Amino acid sequence: MRDVRVRWALEEAGLPCQERLIRADDQASAAYRALQPSAQVAAIEIGELKWFESGAIVLHIAERSDALMPSDPTRRARTQPWVFAALNAVEPHIQNLAELDLFHAREDWALARGPMVVQAVRKRLAALANWLGARDFLEDSFTAADLITATVLRILCHTDIVAKRPILRAYQARREARPALQKAMANYLRPFKTIPA
Amino acid sequence: MRDVRVRWALEEAGLPCQERLIRADDQASAAYRALQPSAQVAAIEIGELKWFESGAIVLHIAERSDALMPSDPTRRARTQPWVFAALNAVEPHIQNLAELDLFHAREDWALARGPMVVQAVRKRLAALANWLGARDFLEDSFTAADLITATVLRILCHTDIVAKRPILRAYQARREARPALQKAMANYLRPFKTIPA
Repeated sequence: MRDVRVRWALEEAGLPCQERLIRADDQASAAYRALQPSAQVAAIEIGELKWFESGAIVLHIAERSDALMPSDPTRRARTQPWVFAALNAVEPHIQNLAELDLFHAREDWALARGPMVVQAVRKRLAALANWLGARDFLEDSFTAADLITATVLRILCHTDIVAKRPILRAYQARREARPALQKAMANYLRPFKTIPA
Repeated sequence: MRDVRVRWALEEAGLPCQERLIRADDQASAAYRALQPSAQVAAIEIGELKWFESGAIVLHIAERSDALMPSDPTRRARTQPWVFAALNAVEPHIQNLAELDLFHAREDWALARGPMVVQAVRKRLAALANWLGARDFLEDSFTAADLITATVLRILCHTDIVAKRPILRAYQARREARPALQKAMANYLRPFKTIPA
């Protein structure tokens, strides 16, 4: 699912790529590990460069496209910290909540733990909404940081946490409406449709 | 504690900085939030640039110093993905374990949840040890990625998880022995020593 980030970034930047889907047994192979050491998705090869970690791949694409990072150095410099904020300060809490809701919802420990995890998520989202206020984007224009942040907020789509915060709901709706994301999602979903029911 | 990353990187790069310690009430202030939107530590100002998120700050310093990132483009390109791997794929699990051990050790839910969190940590560390093998560093030489990875492994110092894995124990011992880290730790600890007992 994290390859959606990379697909979306490539669509925004107008860069072509050749996709190579991998299966669970490919993922554990030595050949794939040489490309992606922690054996996770996604990985990308650009010439002789082997690139891994969706956040790093998206930033790498962004450095090659004004569509994802402004060319002015001072504004440009704000993109990378926001990507780290989304992936290191916000996503871990959201990921904890998703794991709890999707895999452990009926377990006793999860019922006790749940409210603490929700509170941690709310705290991070409150800081994000506070920063955004009336802004359309995290900074002056759409960047890789908005792309990554939107994919992090997407993980909460099984809850009403984003929907109940007007600032974040509107922010997310603007991201979801981007044609590049819609194309990326269509490409992401295509292989699943060819699997017989 | 995450400012240790930044202090360590500045020492490795031989760059001077002027520290400004903040207190809990500074951290919540509008002025500090303008510098660091999620109101966490650390933040840095370089000329007119305001920089936040320890991972982004360390990479920013690294881009200005051969001591933290090789100048050869192909080797250079491997640093950033490893920083993301440490902060997005490894640290969240380690952070979950630390939170559980340090703040909830005696709670019933934590006793049930604990083994799952430990297993997630072990899985990530196994992938890391598998990659490292006989390597001294994540890639050919010491980079910002080793610095960040070592600060992530440090969070486990209350456990024997790293100590029990010879590859990781040796990797971590080589990082802890670096003079730049020892200087950074001494500077980090100094203000605490001036607080009356």
